[in-house]
Order: sequence, then C-alpha cells, then structure tokens
Amino acid sequence: MSYLDHITSPTLLLDENICRANIKRMADKAARHNMKLVPHFKTAQSHEIGDWAKEYGITEVTASSIKMAEYLSGEGWVNIHIAFPFNPLEIPKLNQIAEKQSISVQLINTTTTQMLVDQLEFPVGFFIEIDAGYGRTGVEVTDFGLIEDILFIAKKSDKLNFKGFYLHPGHTYYMSDIPAIYEQSRNALSMLKNKYSTEYPKLATRVGDTPGCAVMEDFGDIDEMGPGNFVFYDLMQAELGGCYKSDIAVCLAVPVVDIKKDRNEILVHGGGVHLAKDVLIDSDGNKNFGEVVYLDENGWEIPEDRSHLKSISQEHGIIKASKELMARVKVGDLLGILPVHSCMTADAMGSYLTIDGKVVDHAEGYSA
Amino acid sequence: MSYLDHITSPTLLLDENICRANIKRMADKAARHNMKLVPHFKTAQSHEIGDWAKEYGITEVTASSIKMAEYLSGEGWVNIHIAFPFNPLEIPKLNQIAEKQSISVQLINTTTTQMLVDQLEFPVGFFIEIDAGYGRTGVEVTDFGLIEDILFIAKKSDKLNFKGFYLHPGHTYYMSDIPAIYEQSRNALSMLKNKYSTEYPKLATRVGDTPGCAVMEDFGDIDEMGPGNFVFYDLMQAELGGCYKSDIAVCLAVPVVDIKKDRNEILVHGGGVHLAKDVLIDSDGNKNFGEVVYLDENGWEIPEDRSHLKSISQEHGIIKASKELMARVKVGDLLGILPVHSCMTADAMGSYLTIDGKVVDHAEGYSA
Repeated sequence: MSYLDHITSPTLLLDENICRANIKRMADKAARHNMKLVPHFKTAQSHEIGDWAKEYGITEVTASSIKMAEYLSGEGWVNIHIAFPFNPLEIPKLNQIAEKQSISVQLINTTTTQMLVDQLEFPVGFFIEIDAGYGRTGVEVTDFGLIEDILFIAKKSDKLNFKGFYLHPGHTYYMSDIPAIYEQSRNALSMLKNKYSTEYPKLATRVGDTPGCAVMEDFGDIDEMGPGNFVFYDLMQAELGGCYKSDIAVCLAVPVVDIKKDRNEILVHGGGVHLAKDVLIDSDGNKNFGEVVYLDENGWEIPEDRSHLKSISQEHGIIKASKELMARVKVGDLLGILPVHSCMTADAMGSYLTIDGKVVDHAEGYSA
Repeated sequence: MSYLDHITSPTLLLDENICRANIKRMADKAARHNMKLVPHFKTAQSHEIGDWAKEYGITEVTASSIKMAEYLSGEGWVNIHIAFPFNPLEIPKLNQIAEKQSISVQLINTTTTQMLVDQLEFPVGFFIEIDAGYGRTGVEVTDFGLIEDILFIAKKSDKLNFKGFYLHPGHTYYMSDIPAIYEQSRNALSMLKNKYSTEYPKLATRVGDTPGCAVMEDFGDIDEMGPGNFVFYDLMQAELGGCYKSDIAVCLAVPVVDIKKDRNEILVHGGGVHLAKDVLIDSDGNKNFGEVVYLDENGWEIPEDRSHLKSISQEHGIIKASKELMARVKVGDLLGILPVHSCMTADAMGSYLTIDGKVVDHAEGYSA
C-alpha cells in the first residue's frame, strides 16, 4: 500500500526528504556566513515542519500575521517575529500571546508605535522595516527622521524593545540583477547598523527573501536571514535560478478526469482553489500554471518530456501534454503538478500528505 | 455596537439584503423565461445562503466537487448536481452520498460512464456536458458518436439515469459578444434536444454562466439556468455589464496599517491569501485587485472618488488612494475592498460576517 492508494481528490504531497534537505542546505549556508537563519513560516505554516527545522539548529521563526503567530505559539520557539507592519487593532491579541510567548513585531510609523507604548502589557520586541528600493513597505532607508521618531517613542515604554532593522528586497522576484539588489540591501543595512549601534549595541540586521538568500554568497555584515519559500521552493524559484526543479518539495496530486487526444490535452481536477492562480509567462506569452511530474510510491519523477498546465479555472486544470504523456495517461490516473508559488498553494490546500502517507498540519486547515 | 467593532483582521463581509435581492432578481428572471434556476453553489458554498435561496423557490443546487456536494447533502435539496466532469476515483464517496441524497453528475467520456455502470450502488442522474465553442471541457456539440456511446453504455445500468445536456459558455468572460455566444449555445442545445427528446422525452437542457444569464433575454428553448456568481457578483461581472457595483454583496474589510502621504498609497492587511489574485487590467495596463468602499454600521458606500488595490502580495495590499481618501484615512481604520472575483475570495476566506454581525458558514471554513 502506498500513499497513492488513498488519494481520490486534489491532495498536496510533501516529500519530507527533499524538504529536510532544503532546510539543511540553507541552515548550513547561514552558518557558513555566520548568520542566524530565522525562517519565514508563511510558506510552511506547520507545527511538524517546524519540528523538522529545529533539528537543524533553528530556534526562531517568523509569521506574516497575528493568526499565524498564534498558531506557532507554545511550540518552543525562542521567538516568533511577525514580519508585517503591525496592525494596531490586534494589540489585545498581541498581549495575549506575549504573556507566554516571546514575540516581536515590525514597525514603520509613529502612530502604531505610540499605540503599542500606550497599550502593551507584556514585553514585545520590534524591528523597523526598511525599504531600500522595493517600494512596497517600510521606512525609506534615508528617512532618519522617521527612524528616530519611532525609536524615541518606543523608549517611553520599557515593554517595547528595539531589536534591529529588517529589509525584504522583494524585487529580487521581478528584476534579474539579484547581486545589484543585494549590494543596495547590504549597504543600506550596514549604514544603519553603523549609525545606530553605538546607542543599540545589540541591534541586528535581517534580510529576508528566498531568491537572494539562495543565490548570494556575499551578505556583508547582515546578521540574520529570514527567507520562507526555501523550505519547499517552486517553479518561480527555479526560474530565478535559486533551486533545481528537483529541490521542489511539494506537488499537487490531481486526478485525471478526461483526455482530449486530438488536442493533446488532459483535464484534471486541480484549479485556482487548489494551486492559487500564480502563473509564469514565457517569452512567447504562453502561460504556465504548473508542471507535470509522474507519481510513484517513492515520490515523483520529473519527466524529460515536459507537460504543463496551460490554463486553470476555479476547479479545472487543463494540461498541454507531451506525446509521451498522451501515450500513457488514462482517466482515473493521478498526476503530480509542481506549483508556481508554493506558499500560495500550501495556503490554498491547508494540509499536506507525505510520501510515507502521513498527514502534516498547516495553519489554514487547522480549526481553532 | 456594530459589526465593525469586532473586526481586527481581514474579514469577508456579506450584505444579506443585497445578496437576497440578487437571488430574487435571478429567480424572477428564470420564472419570466419559464426556466428552472439551479444556482451553482461554488460561489456561496454555504448552508445559510442556501436557506435564503430556498425562500425564492429554489429547490436544487449545483456543486463543483464531491466535497462540496457532501457539504450540501442532507440540507433538503431536491437534487445536488456536480457540474464537473466526474472523477471516477470518487465513486465510493458518490455511493455514500447517493444513498440518502438525490445527486447527479456530469459525464464526457465512456471510460467514466462504464466505471459508474460497474460500481454504482444507488441511483444517480447525469448530464452530458457539451462544448459549443468555449474549448475547455465537454463533448463537442457535433460529436454525436461520443454522445451516443455514453448514452448506450449508461443504459446498461438502471442506476445511471440520463437527465440532459449541460453547457457552460465560459467564454462570456473573455469575449465581448455575449449575444453571439448565446446564439451558438441556444442553437447547440436546441439541436440536441430535438435530436434526442424522442428517446428521452424528459431531457432537460441547462446553461450555466452569470454573465450570460445576467444580460440575455433570449434563452430559446433552454430549460434550466445554472449561474453561480450572481448571488454575490463582483468587479469582473460589473465590467462585463451584468451588474452594478452596488449589486456586489460581499466586500473584504481590511485594516489600514500604514499610509505613505507622498505616494498617495495606503498599506492594508489584505492580500492574495484573502482576495485571491484575480486582477482586472485596464486599457493602460494598470492592475486592479479590488476597489475601495467606505464601511459604516449599515454596510458600505461606494465613494465617488475611486481608490483601488494596485498591487498585492501574500498578505500585503497597496491601495492607490484618491485625494479624498488620503485626507480622511488613519492607521487603525478599516476599509472595504470589493473583490474582482467573489467565488475565489469567498473560497479563500472560508466564512462570512454579515452587516448584522452574524457569522455565516462556508464549506472551506468548515471542519468535518
């Protein structure tokens, strides 16, 4: 009996060995660079995968919302960091968590900082998020006035403790020059460290994105790295050069429901509600919503002949199939789909099934 | 106290009055055209919204998966139809459901038809799905050979009962000529009805898409309509001309976490894991992931000055804000976002909060 025998509907498969290898590789890399690895658990969102991470020396994690932080609380993490500009409406919940779990938040404006000073009941750490070019969130790296306003207000409470600067260069996903982006990030964080470490000798700088952490070997004096996607990787990361397709640790098992021989198309049950709708578009404008792998009792095999999902709806997925796949496929078969964006797929599916047939938890599938 | 006082994180709001009005409008339209309205519940996925629908004379519903059919079972529906080419791996589950709930499936190939003949233990109805131009799924409208093979095989079992032909002209979402698409659909279904109704006098024809059902007034001799999205509508439907923005019955309440005055941008907690990543793109190439409405204790108001989500990540949403919104917004406020694709947003959020502060169920948020 294998895990395959139990699957009748779209199921997110997790290869524990590949996942552990990914965790180890990044942990070793962080150690080589004398950095602390604090994985962003928005990708895995799992107690069990958290336990695997602990075996590689990881002691802290990051969440992207207070709900996720709540899910990860009480699991023995030395600290949980919420890497999203803190939402002041959630201060009551933050107090609940902070009573028993060491937690840190991200601040980028004085309004929220003041509200924390006024309402915090337990000690909470904070990073200031810095924007050095991505243009999404954070204090502009040269806006020393705002940085100092935030630090000044925070000092009014002995419960709000400055930990350092956090920078997420998310444009590594969109721009091909990762080294140039990292040079900008290194310079920004180094400059800030030099400027403020006299007053805050223990301040740490953290950078957090998988494309950069996967390919860069020069992190300057950055203290910590916080990538998330690397535990699983996905087609987007492979495209960016950060991993091989064989490093992708999750794939969606999908039932084959129809075959159109004249069009070389296969209809599977697997669509936007399973994969999410992230897509890769090639230079000819062709869309790729996921790539086919062949499942067997040991996991999956990436075929030489490429087949991919050319379109998806809410539940439908249409595969443009290779000649080889067309020759072997039957209605009722299961195929595997390597996802474009594994964080979104895992969030959509809400749980994992390992190659050993074990169900692994995910925050989204967990009923409080 | 209003529903607003309880919201601290992204929450999907449901205006029951608008939703009921949408249901009633479509039910009245179906009645006007002497058609049966069988809503596709992939949008609402809710027991409670199902109860509202029953008040407007609706007695049957459609699901897009066996899990959804399971969720809707035992709620008093005269029949539940699974409008997705049937996945033969789920025959055991189908038998479980069919023992107590009248259920019908969709067939498009002989393999699955034969497997049902071999394995069905209880009576199940079926529609043959017809493709008359959308090119996604279904038997080509002129492939009488395949239609007749399916019917011939089905006759070998007294448990597999032919109900009619189902056509989903999904290209109404992509092509502007809805009347032309509907002419093609009407002709296809009429031709099939004429061809097979001698042998199957009770056969029904069903068409199922919200854009067409919302705008068309000529359905020919089609017996049933099966749109789903219309219970809520969304920006995509408004763009297609099927509704006004004021008919949209759901909006995502999002906390404001940061304001960038110099960029006229507002950062909210509300991203791909809440809305899904469906996007509208205007003629200048600008992306729209949702539009801002102002919340108050009676619901929401669509402002004259337009603000919209220009970009989203997994949890982040960045609003390009109007001058008026920039003047009034504060960190800690709640804004509403009208979704681009309400089916996907509801599926992502997994439950609803009504303007009266009542929690309404959704299949995705339901723990079995």
